[in-house]
Amino acid sequence: MKMYGNWRSAAAFRVRIALNLKGIAYEEVFLDLDAGDQHKPDFLAINPQGAVPALFDGDGPPLTQSLAILDYLEETRTGVPLLPEEPRARARARSLAQVVACDTHPLYVPRVRTFLMENYGLPRERMLEFLRNAFITGLKTLETRLSNEAGTGRFCQGDAVSHADLCLISLWVGTGIFGIDTAAYPTVKRISEEVLALDAVARAHPLRQPGAPAS
Amino acid sequence: MKMYGNWRSAAAFRVRIALNLKGIAYEEVFLDLDAGDQHKPDFLAINPQGAVPALFDGDGPPLTQSLAILDYLEETRTGVPLLPEEPRARARARSLAQVVACDTHPLYVPRVRTFLMENYGLPRERMLEFLRNAFITGLKTLETRLSNEAGTGRFCQGDAVSHADLCLISLWVGTGIFGIDTAAYPTVKRISEEVLALDAVARAHPLRQPGAPAS
Repeated sequence: MKMYGNWRSAAAFRVRIALNLKGIAYEEVFLDLDAGDQHKPDFLAINPQGAVPALFDGDGPPLTQSLAILDYLEETRTGVPLLPEEPRARARARSLAQVVACDTHPLYVPRVRTFLMENYGLPRERMLEFLRNAFITGLKTLETRLSNEAGTGRFCQGDAVSHADLCLISLWVGTGIFGIDTAAYPTVKRISEEVLALDAVARAHPLRQPGAPAS
Repeated sequence: MKMYGNWRSAAAFRVRIALNLKGIAYEEVFLDLDAGDQHKPDFLAINPQGAVPALFDGDGPPLTQSLAILDYLEETRTGVPLLPEEPRARARARSLAQVVACDTHPLYVPRVRTFLMENYGLPRERMLEFLRNAFITGLKTLETRLSNEAGTGRFCQGDAVSHADLCLISLWVGTGIFGIDTAAYPTVKRISEEVLALDAVARAHPLRQPGAPAS
């Protein structure tokens, strides 16, 4: 498969992990989001939203939106399952994933950060208050749920990796990139360390992709 | 089933439509989001995120996050299918749904609007620029995709209703509530009118729920 992504993109990170867990060979084209590659005509012809990831599986139109891609891979490929079988467990794994992929990550993507700075004339440091609030709101919800709900196990949902862990780790790695204090989220930390120890995750790590800073 | 929702919530609207399409009887408890009911201890015990919808299906913990609930209903109930069978068509329906549910709607929920006003001292009218930008960005993406991609039919994906339409209509109704100009989105309008004509959607309409204004 061929994917358009970026070292830093949380959504591309989730898809790289899923491709690795499914044992699918892929090539990633790394867009420079800071240079605005995602808004250039060549890429807008692939994804009019101007967002990564976009994934090509042979011929046919690109697949977009990370959670939709995870479901597509689950429905069309063998390899490590990305969701449990039991419907309530599946729903919980999806719900935890969506706390990140719907209610947290979209609040701090480049297009939002740029709008805040340009439209309201905010300096970067004040704009980052919005980003930090998004991280903290998401992390608090995850910590409360993961530390209280019976479904939590070695991973977010039971003892097998799922959509929830792929989203959790994409947020956790972002806390490092953006300097978010994580001391108040011990359950998130414990599970994140389990997830990071998986080879499929380690190989997909943002800091191991082309374009990433050395540390 | 028993659902905690709100007349105005786009996410609760999606779930009401799905329950109607599946022919499931339900009771909705309407929280007053402007009064902060969602942040009171009784509701935080149900959903620590302080967000609607939360759905109870018999005994067992509440189901949260609208897209996770749609998948749960699809996996556990008969009635009108909420997704096509073919994997690429499913992925496209999900991707279009997530343009709304991940990248648009979470940017204008009450908690974000409140943060912008309180943290940056923005008057309501200036805060609404952020909301309008979210709507316009989402509507432009949807219009471009729906008017160009081969998968579009009577509805967003082919000629059957799907996740994509439930999300589209939740955004479309919001354009009325928040006064967003929709002249530039004729394909979105055409499909929205198809969706609104469905009885399952008409009965779920925000303005037909308790707590809604008269017009």
